[in-house]
Amino acid sequence: MTDDRGAVFLLTDYGNEDEFAGVTRAVVLRRAPGAPVVDLTHAIPPFDVRAGALALARSVVHLGPGVVVAVVDPGVGTDRRAVAVTVAGRDDAPPGPTALLGPDNGVLGWAIDALGGAVAAVSLRAAPGGTFDGRDLFAPVAARLWSGASLNDVGLPFDPGSLIRLPWPRLVVEPPGSGGGAIEAEVLWIDRFGNAQTAARAGDAERSGLGEAVEVRVGSKLHRARRVERFDHLAEDEVGVLVDANGHLALVCRRRSAATVLGVRPGDVVRLHPVVGGR
Amino acid sequence: MTDDRGAVFLLTDYGNEDEFAGVTRAVVLRRAPGAPVVDLTHAIPPFDVRAGALALARSVVHLGPGVVVAVVDPGVGTDRRAVAVTVAGRDDAPPGPTALLGPDNGVLGWAIDALGGAVAAVSLRAAPGGTFDGRDLFAPVAARLWSGASLNDVGLPFDPGSLIRLPWPRLVVEPPGSGGGAIEAEVLWIDRFGNAQTAARAGDAERSGLGEAVEVRVGSKLHRARRVERFDHLAEDEVGVLVDANGHLALVCRRRSAATVLGVRPGDVVRLHPVVGGR
Amino acid sequence: MTDDRGAVFLLTDYGNEDEFAGVTRAVVLRRAPGAPVVDLTHAIPPFDVRAGALALARSVVHLGPGVVVAVVDPGVGTDRRAVAVTVAGRDDAPPGPTALLGPDNGVLGWAIDALGGAVAAVSLRAAPGGTFDGRDLFAPVAARLWSGASLNDVGLPFDPGSLIRLPWPRLVVEPPGSGGGAIEAEVLWIDRFGNAQTAARAGDAERSGLGEAVEVRVGSKLHRARRVERFDHLAEDEVGVLVDANGHLALVCRRRSAATVLGVRPGDVVRLHPVVGGR
Repeated sequence: MTDDRGAVFLLTDYGNEDEFAGVTRAVVLRRAPGAPVVDLTHAIPPFDVRAGALALARSVVHLGPGVVVAVVDPGVGTDRRAVAVTVAGRDDAPPGPTALLGPDNGVLGWAIDALGGAVAAVSLRAAPGGTFDGRDLFAPVAARLWSGASLNDVGLPFDPGSLIRLPWPRLVVEPPGSGGGAIEAEVLWIDRFGNAQTAARAGDAERSGLGEAVEVRVGSKLHRARRVERFDHLAEDEVGVLVDANGHLALVCRRRSAATVLGVRPGDVVRLHPVVGGR
Repeated sequence: MTDDRGAVFLLTDYGNEDEFAGVTRAVVLRRAPGAPVVDLTHAIPPFDVRAGALALARSVVHLGPGVVVAVVDPGVGTDRRAVAVTVAGRDDAPPGPTALLGPDNGVLGWAIDALGGAVAAVSLRAAPGGTFDGRDLFAPVAARLWSGASLNDVGLPFDPGSLIRLPWPRLVVEPPGSGGGAIEAEVLWIDRFGNAQTAARAGDAERSGLGEAVEVRVGSKLHRARRVERFDHLAEDEVGVLVDANGHLALVCRRRSAATVLGVRPGDVVRLHPVVGGR
Repeated sequence: MTDDRGAVFLLTDYGNEDEFAGVTRAVVLRRAPGAPVVDLTHAIPPFDVRAGALALARSVVHLGPGVVVAVVDPGVGTDRRAVAVTVAGRDDAPPGPTALLGPDNGVLGWAIDALGGAVAAVSLRAAPGGTFDGRDLFAPVAARLWSGASLNDVGLPFDPGSLIRLPWPRLVVEPPGSGGGAIEAEVLWIDRFGNAQTAARAGDAERSGLGEAVEVRVGSKLHRARRVERFDHLAEDEVGVLVDANGHLALVCRRRSAATVLGVRPGDVVRLHPVVGGR
């Protein structure tokens, strides 16, 4: 039975220190005994909706069936809606999550896209303004949905087209021409190892005519980098441009933090262009 | 079956870095296959029994049935008792945990109160003095209790009235009079977001005649604050006094750390009193 | 059924911040619905194969049946093998894990020893060179093994004697003689509480004739220490030599960090010898 229903997946900015995440887990289980509860991460930087939305989008395509709860919510204790959204799923993948829950602040948007787009949405029937919606609102509703309730059992339908969306990350791909082609891309994420994921994808490298030798501009500084397929193709002191595990172009080093070497942070925009006469 | 027995809940100061918490989880599961293990938190500051007792009390009222293990134990490797305590439960709430395990150092006290008070207590039959009681003592006993063993199967009964209790947090509520009323309250907890939970509760604000405009004294410094019901009623630079998700008065800011703004830490005592002629 | 198959245990250097560990958990569950997934720890220092191998060896003897995945992998994206190894088990213990998965870089070695030695090994059938093998390679294979697949279903057999081994930690035990006996031992691990675990074991203290009064040499500095059986036998300002929860000699203080007091880090070598005319 557990097998059919899948799991309840949690992503929050509650941190790993306080008992917030633990109590949220416990409430899901209290209301839905037997539900596997899977923590995606609780360490989204406080209030960083964009970081949460990106992490969620990276994660959801790898999840099995179930219900996803994402709580990164600078608007807790305000009038913003709390929503539940069902998704179409993808024909090219095994069954994934069928519903996502969270505040209507954009945190769910890219994950919904990645799961085939929204089919229906409801605004949760609950007094807004609480200060611990993970425990008091989202966990109980996730438990009900996991247990078989329908969207209409838990909220009032609205047009999913009206869901709040975050601005797309900066990405400009200039085709090769007299100027030589280039990619201008936002840094989306610095991971634990210091790899800097950009908004550009593998195909963007081809479209911009990027060769093996790349120049990376960060602010006013230029760094030499090399496109590689694997970490071990890099020398210890090189910067690499690699297609990462999410299909994005990432700036990487070998066993060092590329983010530190390059001095980049999430939200920075980097410019990649071919080195003229590159090796 | 799992559904009836509930879960095993863990709260420790083992941290999220070493394998302590992981091995404790694994031992519960080895001895009680099928038991859902729920981590409340493992990041109680090392040896901070008071912080552990407060976090446990905040958590237990939200848990479903099962067994709670709390290990914050500066006395590990000493003669202090290891205990298991059953609780009465609360008539006004759905079924919660039925037993709590931990060292007899006060860490369980307020949680026992919150669950209706102790019904029976046993001192665990185990050689004291080990250095990893979570793994070697509490996890195996929790697994036995979860699997159906009774208190008397795992220890020797004693009067629960003799359990060690921590001193109550400082809280003085002065009714409105010539002096105007005030609350003197210990800061119990600073959460990840910098909210400072005090020992005072919603009713204490009424009893002290606290109005909307509040003066907060921290040491020799005075700060102006405002009682609000929701975070979004605060301006960006204001300090608020809010009834938090545990029913306590908390000092809060909007998307900033009130603890940093006010310079308070757990254990500090703050004084709240009405602003004369407050807006 | 779950009970028979045991669990899938995870140990990685993925950290507790990014979603790496969460997605790995989710993939196991997607491929093996119903599998209990137990996190041992994800906070092995990045790329620190030795720390991972030591933590794994400390953990595995306490685990029930199931499959262990260890990913600490500076060689991700290189040609190093990904392997699965079955172990003999121990006659003197209840059933433990039957298979271990990880990169062939030594991270599994001491854990394999602790579980009775390797019976068979296979090199996983998978394109090497990915950057997120936990998600894409180890989790799916762990799910298959947990679900009943055999080693030969998931890889190509090779001689387990060819598995890469890490160098043994430094340990020299000098028997008592004219020089008085001594132990020279590598510091293996500093835990959250600052206890410094050495490569020496309880029996080594006897073999070297170490008495109650011990001198600890760290670099050029000498510290006085005392062998004790329990933390509470130490005065607040003393350094103790204690047999820890893993059976190793550890340098400890009471509610303070011995590592800080002594200035030791993992990899340092300390020398313990009797104090002549010790109290």
